[in-house]
Amino acid sequence: MPRYKITIEYDGRPFVGWQRQDNGPTVQAVIERAVKSFSGETVTIGGAGRTDSGVHATGQVAHIDLEREWPAKTVMNALNFHCQPDPVAILACETTGPGFDARFSAIRRHYLYRIVNRPHPLTYDKGLAWHVKPPLDAEAMHDAAQELVGHHDFTTFRHTRCQAKSPWKTMERIAVYRQNDSVYLECSSRSFLHNQVRSMVGTLKLVGEGRWTRADVKKALEARDRKACGPVAVAEGLYLTQVDYRSPAEDAAALADYQASLNEAQPASLSDEASST
Amino acid sequence: MPRYKITIEYDGRPFVGWQRQDNGPTVQAVIERAVKSFSGETVTIGGAGRTDSGVHATGQVAHIDLEREWPAKTVMNALNFHCQPDPVAILACETTGPGFDARFSAIRRHYLYRIVNRPHPLTYDKGLAWHVKPPLDAEAMHDAAQELVGHHDFTTFRHTRCQAKSPWKTMERIAVYRQNDSVYLECSSRSFLHNQVRSMVGTLKLVGEGRWTRADVKKALEARDRKACGPVAVAEGLYLTQVDYRSPAEDAAALADYQASLNEAQPASLSDEASST
Repeated sequence: MPRYKITIEYDGRPFVGWQRQDNGPTVQAVIERAVKSFSGETVTIGGAGRTDSGVHATGQVAHIDLEREWPAKTVMNALNFHCQPDPVAILACETTGPGFDARFSAIRRHYLYRIVNRPHPLTYDKGLAWHVKPPLDAEAMHDAAQELVGHHDFTTFRHTRCQAKSPWKTMERIAVYRQNDSVYLECSSRSFLHNQVRSMVGTLKLVGEGRWTRADVKKALEARDRKACGPVAVAEGLYLTQVDYRSPAEDAAALADYQASLNEAQPASLSDEASST
Repeated sequence: MPRYKITIEYDGRPFVGWQRQDNGPTVQAVIERAVKSFSGETVTIGGAGRTDSGVHATGQVAHIDLEREWPAKTVMNALNFHCQPDPVAILACETTGPGFDARFSAIRRHYLYRIVNRPHPLTYDKGLAWHVKPPLDAEAMHDAAQELVGHHDFTTFRHTRCQAKSPWKTMERIAVYRQNDSVYLECSSRSFLHNQVRSMVGTLKLVGEGRWTRADVKKALEARDRKACGPVAVAEGLYLTQVDYRSPAEDAAALADYQASLNEAQPASLSDEASST
Protein backbone atom coordinates (compact mmCIF):
# COMPACT_ATOMS: atom_id res chain seq x y z
CA MET A 1 0.00 0.00 0.00
CA PRO A 2 1.80 3.14 -1.19
CA ARG A 3 2.15 6.07 1.20
CA TYR A 4 2.18 9.68 0.00
CA LYS A 5 3.61 12.70 1.79
CA ILE A 6 1.70 15.87 0.96
CA THR A 7 2.54 19.50 1.74
CA ILE A 8 -0.52 21.66 2.29
CA GLU A 9 -1.35 25.35 2.29
CA TYR A 10 -4.63 26.58 3.73
CA ASP A 11 -6.46 29.69 4.74
CA GLY A 12 -7.69 28.80 8.23
CA ARG A 13 -10.54 31.33 8.31
CA PRO A 14 -13.42 29.03 7.35
CA PHE A 15 -12.20 26.08 9.42
CA VAL A 16 -12.59 25.02 13.05
CA GLY A 17 -9.04 23.71 12.77
CA TRP A 18 -7.03 20.95 11.14
CA GLN A 19 -8.48 17.95 12.93
CA ARG A 20 -11.74 16.34 11.86
CA GLN A 21 -14.53 16.97 14.39
CA ASP A 22 -18.29 17.35 14.55
CA ASN A 23 -18.65 21.07 15.22
CA GLY A 24 -17.63 22.50 11.87
CA PRO A 25 -15.54 22.20 8.71
CA THR A 26 -11.92 21.09 9.07
CA VAL A 27 -8.97 20.89 6.72
CA GLN A 28 -8.51 17.19 7.41
CA ALA A 29 -12.12 16.49 6.38
CA VAL A 30 -11.73 18.53 3.16
CA ILE A 31 -8.70 16.47 2.12
CA GLU A 32 -10.22 13.14 3.18
CA ARG A 33 -13.31 13.99 1.12
CA ALA A 34 -11.06 14.86 -1.83
CA VAL A 35 -9.37 11.46 -1.53
CA LYS A 36 -12.79 9.80 -1.50
CA SER A 37 -13.83 11.70 -4.65
CA PHE A 38 -10.56 10.85 -6.37
CA SER A 39 -9.99 7.21 -5.53
CA GLY A 40 -13.21 6.13 -3.83
CA GLU A 41 -11.26 5.27 -0.67
CA THR A 42 -12.17 6.25 2.87
CA VAL A 43 -8.90 7.22 4.50
CA THR A 44 -7.77 8.89 7.70
CA ILE A 45 -4.90 11.26 7.09
CA GLY A 46 -2.33 12.17 9.72
CA GLY A 47 -1.04 15.74 9.94
CA ALA A 48 2.19 17.04 11.44
CA GLY A 49 0.47 19.79 13.40
CA ARG A 50 -3.08 19.95 14.72
CA THR A 51 -3.65 23.63 14.03
CA ASP A 52 -6.45 25.26 16.02
CA SER A 53 -9.53 27.01 14.70
CA GLY A 54 -8.56 29.97 12.50
CA VAL A 55 -4.87 29.03 12.31
CA HIS A 56 -3.33 28.94 8.83
CA ALA A 57 -0.64 26.88 7.13
CA THR A 58 1.74 27.41 4.27
CA GLY A 59 3.59 24.14 4.89
CA GLN A 60 1.47 21.66 6.83
CA VAL A 61 2.49 18.05 6.08
CA ALA A 62 0.34 14.91 6.11
CA HIS A 63 0.59 11.35 4.89
CA ILE A 64 -2.03 9.30 3.05
CA ASP A 65 -2.15 5.58 2.31
CA LEU A 66 -3.84 4.65 -0.96
CA GLU A 67 -4.70 1.17 -2.27
CA ARG A 68 -3.29 1.78 -5.71
CA GLU A 69 0.04 3.23 -6.79
CA TRP A 70 -0.58 6.50 -8.64
CA PRO A 71 2.05 8.93 -9.91
CA ALA A 72 2.55 11.47 -7.10
CA LYS A 73 1.71 14.31 -9.48
CA THR A 74 -1.62 12.68 -10.33
CA VAL A 75 -2.48 12.48 -6.63
CA MET A 76 -1.56 16.15 -6.15
CA ASN A 77 -3.56 17.39 -9.13
CA ALA A 78 -6.58 15.25 -8.26
CA LEU A 79 -6.62 16.41 -4.63
CA ASN A 80 -6.24 20.04 -5.72
CA PHE A 81 -9.15 19.58 -8.09
CA HIS A 82 -11.39 17.95 -5.50
CA CYS A 83 -10.47 20.32 -2.62
CA GLN A 84 -12.02 23.20 -4.59
CA PRO A 85 -13.67 25.53 -3.76
CA ASP A 86 -12.25 25.24 -0.23
CA PRO A 87 -9.13 27.38 0.32
CA VAL A 88 -6.86 24.33 0.57
CA ALA A 89 -4.00 23.65 -1.85
CA ILE A 90 -1.62 20.68 -2.08
CA LEU A 91 1.75 22.28 -2.85
CA ALA A 92 3.77 19.07 -3.16
CA CYS A 93 3.25 15.33 -3.16
CA GLU A 94 5.78 12.52 -3.11
CA THR A 95 5.74 8.80 -2.46
CA THR A 96 7.39 7.87 0.80
CA GLY A 97 8.31 4.74 2.72
CA PRO A 98 6.02 3.00 5.21
CA GLY A 99 8.26 4.26 8.03
CA PHE A 100 7.27 7.86 7.33
CA ASP A 101 4.69 9.36 9.66
CA ALA A 102 3.86 13.03 9.17
CA ARG A 103 3.46 13.50 12.92
CA PHE A 104 5.99 11.19 14.54
CA SER A 105 8.76 11.41 11.94
CA ALA A 106 8.88 15.20 12.20
CA ILE A 107 12.08 16.49 13.76
CA ARG A 108 11.31 20.20 13.64
CA ARG A 109 8.30 22.45 13.19
CA HIS A 110 8.41 26.09 12.10
CA TYR A 111 5.74 28.64 12.86
CA LEU A 112 5.28 32.23 11.77
CA TYR A 113 3.16 34.74 13.66
CA ARG A 114 2.09 37.93 11.91
CA ILE A 115 1.02 41.14 13.64
CA VAL A 116 -0.18 44.10 11.58
CA ASN A 117 0.93 47.06 13.66
CA ARG A 118 -0.85 50.19 12.51
CA PRO A 119 -3.60 52.47 13.76
CA HIS A 120 -5.86 51.93 10.72
CA PRO A 121 -8.29 49.03 10.44
CA LEU A 122 -7.34 45.96 8.39
CA THR A 123 -8.74 45.46 4.89
CA TYR A 124 -7.10 42.58 2.93
CA ASP A 125 -5.62 41.10 6.08
CA LYS A 126 -8.77 40.57 8.11
CA GLY A 127 -8.46 37.14 9.68
CA LEU A 128 -4.89 36.76 8.40
CA ALA A 129 -3.03 38.69 11.12
CA TRP A 130 -3.36 40.09 14.64
CA HIS A 131 -4.21 43.78 14.46
CA VAL A 132 -2.26 45.66 17.16
CA LYS A 133 -2.62 49.45 17.15
CA PRO A 134 -0.02 50.75 19.65
CA PRO A 135 3.45 50.95 18.09
CA LEU A 136 5.53 47.87 18.92
CA ASP A 137 9.28 47.83 19.46
CA ALA A 138 10.18 44.73 17.45
CA GLU A 139 13.82 44.86 18.51
CA ALA A 140 12.90 44.79 22.20
CA MET A 141 10.57 41.87 21.48
CA HIS A 142 13.36 40.00 19.70
CA ASP A 143 15.75 40.63 22.55
CA ALA A 144 13.28 39.47 25.21
CA ALA A 145 12.34 36.42 23.09
CA GLN A 146 15.88 35.11 23.49
CA GLU A 147 14.98 34.29 27.13
CA LEU A 148 12.66 31.62 25.72
CA VAL A 149 15.26 29.98 23.47
CA GLY A 150 16.69 26.73 24.82
CA HIS A 151 15.42 23.86 26.95
CA HIS A 152 12.81 25.08 29.42
CA ASP A 153 9.73 24.12 31.38
CA PHE A 154 7.11 26.05 29.38
CA THR A 155 4.21 25.60 31.83
CA THR A 156 3.61 29.37 31.74
CA PHE A 157 3.15 29.29 27.95
CA ARG A 158 0.90 26.26 27.78
CA HIS A 159 -2.87 25.96 27.47
CA THR A 160 -4.42 24.66 30.68
CA ARG A 161 -5.96 21.84 28.62
CA CYS A 162 -2.65 20.94 26.91
CA GLN A 163 -2.39 17.16 26.80
CA ALA A 164 1.39 16.83 26.52
CA LYS A 165 2.86 14.71 29.30
CA SER A 166 5.77 17.07 29.85
CA PRO A 167 5.97 20.88 29.77
CA TRP A 168 9.63 20.74 28.76
CA LYS A 169 10.42 21.81 25.22
CA THR A 170 13.50 23.06 23.42
CA MET A 171 12.99 26.28 21.49
CA GLU A 172 15.70 26.20 18.85
CA ARG A 173 15.16 29.70 17.51
CA ILE A 174 12.90 32.72 17.90
CA ALA A 175 13.28 35.78 15.68
CA VAL A 176 11.13 38.89 15.81
CA TYR A 177 11.44 41.54 13.11
CA ARG A 178 9.51 44.34 11.47
CA GLN A 179 8.70 44.71 7.77
CA ASN A 180 6.81 47.95 7.10
CA ASP A 181 3.51 47.70 9.00
CA SER A 182 4.01 44.07 9.97
CA VAL A 183 5.84 42.54 12.92
CA TYR A 184 6.75 38.88 12.39
CA LEU A 185 7.76 36.24 14.90
CA GLU A 186 9.37 33.06 13.58
CA CYS A 187 10.04 30.12 15.86
CA SER A 188 11.32 26.59 15.49
CA SER A 189 11.22 23.60 17.78
CA ARG A 190 10.94 19.82 17.55
CA SER A 191 7.41 20.19 18.88
CA PHE A 192 5.25 22.72 20.67
CA LEU A 193 2.81 22.72 23.55
CA HIS A 194 -0.84 23.62 22.98
CA ASN A 195 -1.08 27.41 22.48
CA GLN A 196 2.65 27.81 23.05
CA VAL A 197 3.38 30.15 20.14
CA ARG A 198 0.33 32.31 20.77
CA SER A 199 1.17 32.46 24.49
CA MET A 200 4.73 33.56 23.75
CA VAL A 201 3.55 36.16 21.22
CA GLY A 202 0.97 37.57 23.63
CA THR A 203 3.65 37.92 26.29
CA LEU A 204 6.23 39.44 23.94
CA LYS A 205 3.63 41.98 22.80
CA LEU A 206 3.73 43.40 26.35
CA VAL A 207 7.46 43.94 25.81
CA GLY A 208 6.82 45.54 22.41
CA GLU A 209 4.44 48.01 24.07
CA GLY A 210 7.03 48.86 26.71
CA ARG A 211 4.89 47.45 29.53
CA TRP A 212 7.21 44.51 30.21
CA THR A 213 10.99 44.10 30.13
CA ARG A 214 13.13 41.16 29.11
CA ALA A 215 13.52 40.45 32.83
CA ASP A 216 9.73 40.18 33.18
CA VAL A 217 9.66 37.53 30.46
CA LYS A 218 12.37 35.60 32.25
CA LYS A 219 10.41 35.84 35.48
CA ALA A 220 7.22 34.65 33.77
CA LEU A 221 9.04 31.64 32.31
CA GLU A 222 10.59 30.78 35.64
CA ALA A 223 7.25 31.09 37.43
CA ARG A 224 6.09 27.91 35.64
CA ASP A 225 2.59 29.20 36.22
CA ARG A 226 -0.05 29.71 33.51
CA LYS A 227 -1.23 32.85 35.36
CA ALA A 228 2.15 34.52 34.72
CA CYS A 229 1.52 34.48 30.94
CA GLY A 230 0.46 37.59 29.01
CA PRO A 231 -2.91 37.58 27.20
CA VAL A 232 -2.76 34.90 24.50
CA ALA A 233 -2.46 36.24 20.95
CA VAL A 234 -5.38 35.56 18.56
CA ALA A 235 -5.36 32.48 16.32
CA GLU A 236 -5.66 34.53 13.09
CA GLY A 237 -1.98 35.53 13.06
CA LEU A 238 -0.51 32.03 13.29
CA TYR A 239 0.89 30.06 10.33
CA LEU A 240 2.46 26.58 10.33
CA THR A 241 5.11 27.22 7.68
CA GLN A 242 7.35 24.16 7.53
CA VAL A 243 7.96 20.72 8.98
CA ASP A 244 11.37 19.07 8.82
CA TYR A 245 11.95 15.32 8.64
CA ARG A 246 14.75 12.85 8.97
CA SER A 247 16.33 11.55 5.78
CA PRO A 248 14.85 8.24 4.47
CA ALA A 249 17.83 6.27 5.88
CA GLU A 250 17.48 7.87 9.32
CA ASP A 251 13.78 7.23 9.08
CA ALA A 252 14.18 3.49 8.41
CA ALA A 253 16.55 3.18 11.36
CA ALA A 254 14.14 5.07 13.60
CA LEU A 255 11.28 2.79 12.54
CA ALA A 256 13.36 -0.29 13.36
CA ASP A 257 14.19 1.18 16.77
CA TYR A 258 10.56 1.95 17.38
CA GLN A 259 9.38 -1.52 16.38
CA ALA A 260 12.01 -3.07 18.64
CA SER A 261 10.85 -0.84 21.49
CA LEU A 262 7.28 -2.08 21.05
CA ASN A 263 8.47 -5.47 22.23
CA GLU A 264 9.62 -3.87 25.46
CA ALA A 265 7.33 -1.06 26.57
CA GLN A 266 5.26 1.76 25.08
CA PRO A 267 7.60 4.77 24.89
CA ALA A 268 6.12 7.53 26.99
CA SER A 269 7.50 10.37 24.92
CA LEU A 270 5.70 9.58 21.67
CA SER A 271 2.38 11.08 22.67
CA ASP A 272 4.03 14.46 23.13
CA GLU A 273 5.27 14.83 19.61
CA ALA A 274 2.27 16.34 17.98
CA SER A 275 2.27 20.03 17.68
CA SER A 276 -0.82 21.85 18.68
CA THR A 277 -0.39 25.49 19.26
CA MET B 1 -15.38 75.26 4.05
CA PRO B 2 -12.31 73.13 4.86
CA ARG B 3 -11.20 70.52 2.35
CA TYR B 4 -9.56 67.25 3.42
CA LYS B 5 -7.33 65.01 1.33
CA ILE B 6 -7.66 61.36 2.33
CA THR B 7 -5.58 58.34 1.30
CA ILE B 8 -7.58 55.12 1.15
CA GLU B 9 -6.86 51.40 1.15
CA TYR B 10 -9.55 48.93 0.19
CA ASP B 11 -10.12 45.32 -0.64
CA GLY B 12 -12.13 45.54 -3.88
CA ARG B 13 -13.71 42.09 -3.60
CA PRO B 14 -17.09 43.07 -2.16
CA PHE B 15 -17.48 46.21 -4.28
CA VAL B 16 -18.79 46.93 -7.78
CA GLY B 17 -16.06 49.56 -7.99
CA TRP B 18 -15.09 52.93 -6.59
CA GLN B 19 -17.85 55.06 -8.04
CA ARG B 20 -21.30 55.24 -6.45
CA GLN B 21 -23.94 53.49 -8.55
CA ASP B 22 -27.20 51.64 -8.16
CA ASN B 23 -26.19 48.06 -8.88
CA GLY B 24 -24.17 47.25 -5.77
CA PRO B 25 -21.91 48.46 -2.96
CA THR B 26 -19.15 50.91 -3.82
CA VAL B 27 -16.20 52.34 -1.93
CA GLN B 28 -17.36 55.89 -2.55
CA ALA B 29 -20.75 55.13 -0.98
CA VAL B 30 -19.11 53.51 2.08
CA ILE B 31 -17.03 56.63 2.72
CA GLU B 32 -19.88 59.06 2.01
CA ARG B 33 -22.02 57.10 4.47
CA ALA B 34 -19.20 57.28 7.03
CA VAL B 35 -19.06 61.08 6.60
CA LYS B 36 -22.83 61.24 7.13
CA SER B 37 -22.53 59.17 10.33
CA PHE B 38 -19.65 61.29 11.59
CA SER B 39 -20.71 64.86 10.79
CA GLY B 40 -24.29 64.48 9.61
CA GLU B 41 -23.36 65.98 6.24
CA THR B 42 -24.32 64.60 2.85
CA VAL B 43 -21.23 64.96 0.70
CA THR B 44 -20.03 63.79 -2.69
CA ILE B 45 -16.40 62.78 -2.60
CA GLY B 46 -14.12 62.88 -5.60
CA GLY B 47 -11.56 60.10 -6.13
CA ALA B 48 -8.34 60.17 -8.14
CA GLY B 49 -9.11 56.90 -9.90
CA ARG B 50 -12.46 55.30 -10.68
CA THR B 51 -11.39 51.73 -10.04
CA ASP B 52 -13.58 49.04 -11.64
CA SER B 53 -15.47 46.25 -9.93
CA GLY B 54 -13.09 43.98 -8.00
CA VAL B 55 -10.09 46.33 -8.34
CA HIS B 56 -8.20 47.13 -5.13
CA ALA B 57 -6.34 50.14 -3.79
CA THR B 58 -3.54 50.69 -1.33
CA GLY B 59 -3.25 54.40 -2.11
CA GLN B 60 -6.46 55.79 -3.62
CA VAL B 61 -6.86 59.52 -2.92
CA ALA B 62 -10.05 61.53 -2.51
CA HIS B 63 -11.06 64.94 -1.22
CA ILE B 64 -13.97 65.83 1.04
CA ASP B 65 -15.44 69.21 1.92
CA LEU B 66 -16.86 69.49 5.42
CA GLU B 67 -18.83 72.37 6.97
CA ARG B 68 -16.79 72.48 10.13
CA GLU B 69 -13.04 72.52 10.68
CA TRP B 70 -12.00 69.33 12.48
CA PRO B 71 -8.47 68.18 13.25
CA ALA B 72 -7.41 65.97 10.32
CA LYS B 73 -6.70 63.11 12.69
CA THR B 74 -10.22 63.29 14.08
CA VAL B 75 -11.65 63.02 10.57
CA MET B 76 -9.43 60.01 9.84
CA ASN B 77 -10.29 58.17 13.03
CA ALA B 78 -14.01 58.91 12.69
CA LEU B 79 -14.14 57.71 9.08
CA ASN B 80 -12.19 54.58 9.97
CA PHE B 81 -14.65 53.91 12.76
CA HIS B 82 -17.72 54.43 10.59
CA CYS B 83 -16.37 52.53 7.54
CA GLN B 84 -16.34 49.34 9.61
CA PRO B 85 -17.04 46.51 8.96
CA ASP B 86 -16.41 47.25 5.28
CA PRO B 87 -12.81 46.52 4.20
CA VAL B 88 -12.00 50.21 3.71
CA ALA B 89 -9.31 52.04 5.69
CA ILE B 90 -8.30 55.70 5.67
CA LEU B 91 -4.50 55.59 5.87
CA ALA B 92 -3.89 59.35 5.98
CA CYS B 93 -5.86 62.59 6.19
CA GLU B 94 -4.70 66.17 5.87
CA THR B 95 -6.31 69.55 5.34
CA THR B 96 -5.67 70.96 1.92
CA GLY B 97 -6.38 74.14 -0.02
CA PRO B 98 -9.53 74.74 -2.06
CA GLY B 99 -7.43 74.39 -5.23
CA PHE B 100 -6.79 70.73 -4.52
CA ASP B 101 -8.88 68.25 -6.48
CA ALA B 102 -8.08 64.56 -6.00
CA ARG B 103 -8.84 63.88 -9.65
CA PHE B 104 -7.72 66.97 -11.54
CA SER B 105 -4.73 67.94 -9.41
CA ALA B 106 -3.13 64.50 -9.83
CA ILE B 107 0.03 64.55 -11.89
CA ARG B 108 0.84 60.83 -11.78
CA ARG B 109 -0.93 57.58 -10.96
CA HIS B 110 0.79 54.32 -10.02
CA TYR B 111 -0.73 50.90 -10.46
CA LEU B 112 0.45 47.45 -9.44
CA TYR B 113 -0.76 44.26 -11.07
CA ARG B 114 -0.19 40.96 -9.28
CA ILE B 115 -0.14 37.53 -10.93
CA VAL B 116 0.25 34.41 -8.81
CA ASN B 117 2.12 32.07 -11.12
CA ARG B 118 1.92 28.52 -9.81
CA PRO B 119 0.14 25.28 -10.70
CA HIS B 120 -1.65 24.97 -7.34
CA PRO B 121 -4.97 26.68 -6.60
CA LEU B 122 -5.03 29.93 -4.63
CA THR B 123 -5.97 29.94 -0.95
CA TYR B 124 -5.32 33.30 0.83
CA ASP B 125 -5.05 35.16 -2.45
CA LYS B 126 -8.40 34.32 -3.99
CA GLY B 127 -9.73 37.55 -5.49
CA LEU B 128 -6.45 39.34 -4.73
CA ALA B 129 -4.41 38.24 -7.75
CA TRP B 130 -4.68 36.73 -11.22
CA HIS B 131 -3.94 33.01 -11.03
CA VAL B 132 -1.85 31.98 -14.05
CA LYS B 133 -0.66 28.36 -14.11
CA PRO B 134 1.83 28.12 -17.02
CA PRO B 135 5.28 29.38 -16.00
CA LEU B 136 5.81 33.00 -17.05
CA ASP B 137 9.11 34.49 -18.16
CA ALA B 138 9.00 37.77 -16.20
CA GLU B 139 12.18 39.07 -17.81
CA ALA B 140 10.76 38.65 -21.31
CA MET B 141 7.60 40.42 -20.15
CA HIS B 142 9.65 43.29 -18.74
CA ASP B 143 11.63 43.60 -21.95
CA ALA B 144 8.51 43.60 -24.16
CA ALA B 145 6.79 46.08 -21.82
CA GLN B 146 9.40 48.69 -22.72
CA GLU B 147 7.71 48.97 -26.14
CA LEU B 148 4.76 50.53 -24.30
CA VAL B 149 6.80 53.14 -22.43
CA GLY B 150 6.59 56.65 -23.86
CA HIS B 151 3.97 58.73 -25.67
CA HIS B 152 1.72 56.49 -27.76
CA ASP B 153 -1.74 56.09 -29.21
CA PHE B 154 -3.04 53.33 -26.91
CA THR B 155 -6.21 52.52 -28.88
CA THR B 156 -5.24 48.81 -28.82
CA PHE B 157 -5.12 48.84 -25.01
CA ARG B 158 -8.33 50.73 -24.39
CA HIS B 159 -11.80 49.51 -23.51
CA THR B 160 -14.22 49.98 -26.41
CA ARG B 161 -16.42 52.01 -24.06
CA CYS B 162 -13.54 54.20 -22.83
CA GLN B 163 -14.78 57.79 -22.63
CA ALA B 164 -11.45 59.60 -22.91
CA LYS B 165 -11.39 62.05 -25.82
CA SER B 166 -7.91 61.03 -26.89
CA PRO B 167 -6.20 57.60 -26.96
CA TRP B 168 -2.78 59.23 -26.51
CA LYS B 169 -1.10 58.67 -23.16
CA THR B 170 2.46 58.81 -21.88
CA MET B 171 3.57 55.69 -20.01
CA GLU B 172 6.40 56.92 -17.80
CA ARG B 173 7.52 53.54 -16.51
CA ILE B 174 6.61 49.86 -16.66
CA ALA B 175 8.52 47.28 -14.63
CA VAL B 176 7.77 43.55 -14.53
CA TYR B 177 9.52 41.33 -12.00
CA ARG B 178 9.13 38.04 -10.18
CA GLN B 179 9.11 37.48 -6.40
CA ASN B 180 8.79 33.78 -5.57
CA ASP B 181 5.42 32.65 -6.92
CA SER B 182 4.29 36.15 -7.84
CA VAL B 183 4.89 38.19 -10.99
CA TYR B 184 4.33 41.92 -10.48
CA LEU B 185 3.81 44.66 -13.03
CA GLU B 186 4.21 48.26 -11.87
CA CYS B 187 3.31 51.16 -14.13
CA SER B 188 3.12 54.92 -13.83
CA SER B 189 1.47 57.56 -15.97
CA ARG B 190 -0.25 60.91 -15.58
CA SER B 191 -3.50 59.13 -16.37
CA PHE B 192 -4.72 55.90 -17.89
CA LEU B 193 -7.37 54.86 -20.39
CA HIS B 194 -10.21 52.59 -19.29
CA ASN B 195 -8.85 49.01 -18.90
CA GLN B 196 -5.40 50.12 -20.05
CA VAL B 197 -3.37 48.36 -17.36
CA ARG B 198 -5.37 45.14 -17.59
CA SER B 199 -5.11 45.22 -21.40
CA MET B 200 -1.34 45.67 -21.23
CA VAL B 201 -0.98 42.87 -18.63
CA GLY B 202 -3.12 40.48 -20.69
CA THR B 203 -0.96 41.15 -23.73
CA LEU B 204 2.33 40.85 -21.85
CA LYS B 205 1.18 37.52 -20.40
CA LEU B 206 1.29 36.15 -23.98
CA VAL B 207 4.95 37.16 -24.02
CA GLY B 208 5.52 35.53 -20.63
CA GLU B 209 4.11 32.27 -21.98
CA GLY B 210 6.39 32.45 -25.02
CA ARG B 211 3.46 32.82 -27.42
CA TRP B 212 4.29 36.42 -28.37
CA THR B 213 7.57 38.29 -28.85
CA ARG B 214 8.47 41.87 -28.06
CA ALA B 215 7.98 42.58 -31.78
CA ASP B 216 4.38 41.29 -31.52
CA VAL B 217 3.68 43.77 -28.73
CA LYS B 218 5.09 46.59 -30.86
CA LYS B 219 2.92 45.48 -33.78
CA ALA B 220 -0.17 45.34 -31.56
CA LEU B 221 0.49 48.87 -30.27
CA GLU B 222 1.05 50.19 -33.79
CA ALA B 223 -2.13 48.52 -35.06
CA ARG B 224 -4.17 51.02 -33.00
CA ASP B 225 -6.91 48.44 -33.09
CA ARG B 226 -8.67 46.99 -30.05
CA LYS B 227 -8.78 43.59 -31.77
CA ALA B 228 -4.96 43.44 -31.72
CA CYS B 229 -4.97 43.33 -27.89
CA GLY B 230 -4.41 40.09 -25.94
CA PRO B 231 -7.18 38.82 -23.63
CA VAL B 232 -7.70 41.42 -20.89
CA ALA B 233 -6.34 40.43 -17.46
CA VAL B 234 -8.90 39.94 -14.64
CA ALA B 235 -9.76 42.85 -12.32
CA GLU B 236 -8.72 40.94 -9.17
CA GLY B 237 -5.00 41.50 -9.72
CA LEU B 238 -5.10 45.28 -10.06
CA TYR B 239 -4.17 47.75 -7.28
CA LEU B 240 -4.13 51.56 -7.39
CA THR B 241 -1.09 52.11 -5.20
CA GLN B 242 -0.25 55.81 -5.28
CA VAL B 243 -1.31 59.16 -6.69
CA ASP B 244 1.16 62.05 -6.99
CA TYR B 245 0.22 65.70 -6.77
CA ARG B 246 1.70 69.09 -7.43
CA SER B 247 3.11 70.99 -4.50
CA PRO B 248 0.65 73.46 -2.87
CA ALA B 249 2.34 76.41 -4.64
CA GLU B 250 2.12 74.71 -8.05
CA ASP B 251 -1.44 73.84 -7.21
CA ALA B 252 -2.46 77.44 -6.46
CA ALA B 253 -0.90 78.58 -9.73
CA ALA B 254 -2.70 75.82 -11.65
CA LEU B 255 -6.01 76.82 -10.07
CA ALA B 256 -5.47 80.46 -11.08
CA ASP B 257 -4.68 79.35 -14.64
CA TYR B 258 -7.76 77.20 -14.69
CA GLN B 259 -10.04 79.96 -13.40
CA ALA B 260 -8.60 82.35 -15.97
CA SER B 261 -9.23 79.81 -18.69
CA LEU B 262 -12.88 79.53 -17.67
CA ASN B 263 -13.36 83.10 -18.84
CA GLU B 264 -12.19 82.06 -22.30
CA ALA B 265 -13.35 78.54 -23.18
CA GLN B 266 -13.94 75.17 -21.52
CA PRO B 267 -10.61 73.33 -21.75
CA ALA B 268 -11.15 70.11 -23.70
CA SER B 269 -8.44 68.16 -21.98
CA LEU B 270 -9.88 68.15 -18.46
CA SER B 271 -12.35 65.34 -19.03
CA ASP B 272 -9.51 62.96 -19.87
CA GLU B 273 -7.70 63.24 -16.59
CA ALA B 274 -9.56 60.67 -14.59
CA SER B 275 -8.04 57.28 -14.43
CA SER B 276 -10.30 54.37 -14.99
CA THR B 277 -8.55 51.16 -15.70
